[in-house]
Formats: sequence, C-alpha cells, structure tokens
Amino acid sequence: MIERIAILGTGLLGASAGLALRAAGYGGELVGWNRNPENGRAALEKGAVDRLVSDSVEAARTAQVTLLAVPVLASLGLMEQLAAALGPDQLVTDVGSTKARVAETAARLYNALGKPAFLPGHPMAGKERGGAELGDAQLFESAVWIFTDDPQAQRTPAASALVNEWREWTAAMGARTLDLAPARHDELVAWVSHLPQFLATALSALLEEQEDKGLDLHQVGGRALREMTRLGSSPFSMWRDIAHTNTEPIERALLALEQRLAHLRENLRTPALREEFEQANRFRKE
Amino acid sequence: MIERIAILGTGLLGASAGLALRAAGYGGELVGWNRNPENGRAALEKGAVDRLVSDSVEAARTAQVTLLAVPVLASLGLMEQLAAALGPDQLVTDVGSTKARVAETAARLYNALGKPAFLPGHPMAGKERGGAELGDAQLFESAVWIFTDDPQAQRTPAASALVNEWREWTAAMGARTLDLAPARHDELVAWVSHLPQFLATALSALLEEQEDKGLDLHQVGGRALREMTRLGSSPFSMWRDIAHTNTEPIERALLALEQRLAHLRENLRTPALREEFEQANRFRKE
Repeated sequence: MIERIAILGTGLLGASAGLALRAAGYGGELVGWNRNPENGRAALEKGAVDRLVSDSVEAARTAQVTLLAVPVLASLGLMEQLAAALGPDQLVTDVGSTKARVAETAARLYNALGKPAFLPGHPMAGKERGGAELGDAQLFESAVWIFTDDPQAQRTPAASALVNEWREWTAAMGARTLDLAPARHDELVAWVSHLPQFLATALSALLEEQEDKGLDLHQVGGRALREMTRLGSSPFSMWRDIAHTNTEPIERALLALEQRLAHLRENLRTPALREEFEQANRFRKE
Repeated sequence: MIERIAILGTGLLGASAGLALRAAGYGGELVGWNRNPENGRAALEKGAVDRLVSDSVEAARTAQVTLLAVPVLASLGLMEQLAAALGPDQLVTDVGSTKARVAETAARLYNALGKPAFLPGHPMAGKERGGAELGDAQLFESAVWIFTDDPQAQRTPAASALVNEWREWTAAMGARTLDLAPARHDELVAWVSHLPQFLATALSALLEEQEDKGLDLHQVGGRALREMTRLGSSPFSMWRDIAHTNTEPIERALLALEQRLAHLRENLRTPALREEFEQANRFRKE
C-alpha cells in the first residue's frame, strides 16, 4: 500500500494526477514540489497536494512513489539526483512526453541491484495550456496511459509491488494502460501528437504572417480555422523539450507531410485528388 | 416583399437556408429542386421546403428569388440556363464557396439592361459532411455571410429591392454580412477555409498510409489527433469544385505552408523554434 506519493512538478499534469488520485479514493499523503513556488500554491489551494516542500530530493526521499511531472529535460536532471538519493524499495515514475531518453537514463541509473526502481510512463492527456489552475480530476478519463518498462529491470519485491500498485492507480484514474517499447512509443507519438502540434504551430504562424501583410483572416474565419489552429496556443515551454528529445521521428513525420502537401498541390485538378480524399476518409472511419 | 423563393440544391446549405428562413419568420413559399430527388424528399420531410419541383428552370421562373445551393461548377451551369429564362425583376443569388468564376459569369450574363439580377454570396458555414439530413436552422447563426457584389451592376428598382431584402434575410438568419471583392474573397478563403481542409485531408491520408504500414495510431491517438483530422471526413464531392475554381490561391497557400513546415523542421533544436511558437501564439490571441 502506497502511503505517500511525492509529485515533483505541480503543473497541469502533476496537479491533475493529485486530484485524480484523490477522486479515485487514494487515502495516503500527497506531497508536492514545484520549481516555481507560486504554481505549487495553486495546486495546494485546489487540493491537488496536501502540503508543499521546498526540496525535491527530500520530498522523494520520504515517499514510496515519486511522480515526475516536469518537462522531459528537467525530468532527466531529477532522475540523476534521485538515483543517488533513493533506496531499492522506492519507485520513481514519470509522465514525460518522450520516452527514449528517459528509458536510457533509467537503464543506466535505476532498475538494478541496490538501485531504486523506475517505471517510464506517459498519459496521452493534456490541454493546449499548462498550469495547476487547469488541473482536472477527469483529465485521464478514457486516456491511454502508456508505459515503456524495461523487461530486464531488476527490482526488489517491494518495488515490484509499487509498480503494480501504481499501474492500478492509473487505471483507477480512468486511463487504459498500454505497454510499448520506448522507441515504438516515440515513433507513434511523433505521428499522433507531435506532428499535429507542430503543424498547428506552423499554420498559425503562417496565418499570423498573412495578417501582418494586411489580410483580415479572423474576420472571415470559421470553425475549420479555429479548430486547425487551436493547438497554436501551446507555449514553446511545453514543446521545447519534446523537440529536443524526439528530433529524428518528428523530422521524418514533418518531411513526409511536406511531401504529401506538395503531392496534393500538384494534383488539385487531377484524379489523384480524389484518391487523397478517399484515403483520408478511410482514416476517419476507423 | 419576397413571396416565393426557389432553392436549387437541397443539400446541407440549401436545406439549412430553408429552415433558417422559416425560423426567422419568412412567410412566403419555399420551392425546392434537387438533382437527386431522394435528397429533395429529405428536405421536404424536414420542412426545409414546402414542395418539390422536377424542373430547376421552371422553379426559378415562378420565384422572385432563386438561391443556388449546389457545388460551384453546377452553379455556373445553372447560371447559364437561368440567365436566358428569367426577367429583369428577378434575382438569383448563391452560396458557393468560391466567387471569382461566379462573379465573372454574373458580369457576362446578369446585372445589365433587360437581364436578371445576380448577387454572389457565400455564408462561411458548413459541416464536414453534407446532406439535407444535417440541415440546421442555426447553421448561419454568428456566421459571416460574404457578398461579392458588382458595383457596376445595373438593376431595376424591383430587383434592387430584392437584393436589399435578401441581405436582410441573411441577417435575420443570424449571419453577419460582409462585402468583399471576388478576388479578395477567394484569397481569404484559400487561407482560412481551403488550406485547413486540404491540410487535414493530407494529414489524414498520410496517417492512413502509416496505419497501412503497421502503426496503430488510433490506439494511442488523443484529442489533438481527432481535432486535426476531423475535416479529413469531408468528401471529395464537396471539394472538387473548390479545387477547380480557386486553384492558384490554394496552390500559393499550400506552397507557403510546405515552406513553413520545412523551416520548422530544420529548426527543431534552434532558437527559431521559439519564434515560431510565439508568432503562432499571437495569431490565437487576436
């Protein structure tokens, strides 16, 4: 039974995890830490954590499970610090958007004799803006929570029990769990999450440039425009680490889309346009 | 006072116009015609028209206002037929998605001494699928209804009164009217409507190709994926005429997006990525 969970990073995902754990009946203590203390207070006021601490390593040291809910590059830094501070009966898990670098670091510093346990995780949930204020106990409802665990992981019986219990809590929060290899995860999310985001960003930036040139696009824009640019609101701070830690799969997806758009552009008046629409229709029917 | 309106084409837009006119208090007769009689019956059953006729020219001949609600190339054909059949006190208007070709045809065959009047229109409203079954009296609520009228149009006082009254009905249906030159209209909609559509089609088709190669994208896809591919459901039949009648503005918009995506791809790990996000954020803040 997990009696204390440390949530390191009380932004949208960390705060939502605290709220969802409570809503699912978690009765242990939730200790929060945030690099920006103001955001920590917002999570405390929402009831996402029971108390705040000012030292991330100290928060983890006294918890059985530590949830890393910070951007991926910050997670990698915390993983280094915590590996040296925690014991083999303690579990660290995360909600980071890319998994190859996290899994590499886990294989190097965790999941071996005398080392703490690490379970790489990624709930496919979010909003176009971050922050504890948007924290939501329902955020993981019907979402897929992906784990990219290492089949070679060596863990104590106590740590293995924590892994199983944490998986059960993610299901209790409403998520469907799915196991993938880290590289497969990163390839899939490049297509279903990163490509749509970078596309919406490029489209929004391009349209802003047209507005600067004097076209009043907002005046005539309708649902299609709003929908296809909604993700353009996402801040760089949320996406910088993703671009840095999943560069090659994102490059491949973007290049493939550029080529696809060129093909469509060259065929606006040929029968190939029909094939493009029919293939798109099939994707939506599944 | 308009006593009879002929709606030629009782698909989504035609049926919605009939329903919206009724909801706004229009008390005259609504006569419907549809190339596919089955779709006509669906509009009749919904109350979007009062009766159906089998001859489009005959329907228009006995109406003061004729609304063309068919794809643009079909509209151009009907414009040719109706110009020869109608008198100078009769008005034809349309809801077509592109306006340059329609305005050219209107200048050639309408709006001159002894010719019927033509008012080119385009309500920025729609759904990703067509058909009278989806007809909706609220479809034009808060939408922009663009007119690209010809300042050189010569009209009888009776026809001018019909133009004014039709404009008032579009406002009564909940739309905001906006006047633009045809070429300006076509450039604007290339950016805010056609580019998002062709982008969603290309993205959906590309993702379908990845699924065919064995990636189970639907298994992990979330809100971003669903939203950015929703328009991928749109059928080719709705978009073929748009691609044919607004080819150059769409080509320019697609090429600009391809270049923008390449720029983003080449800068995933440079400070230029931040600028791209910030420019996108500005577009969304307006």
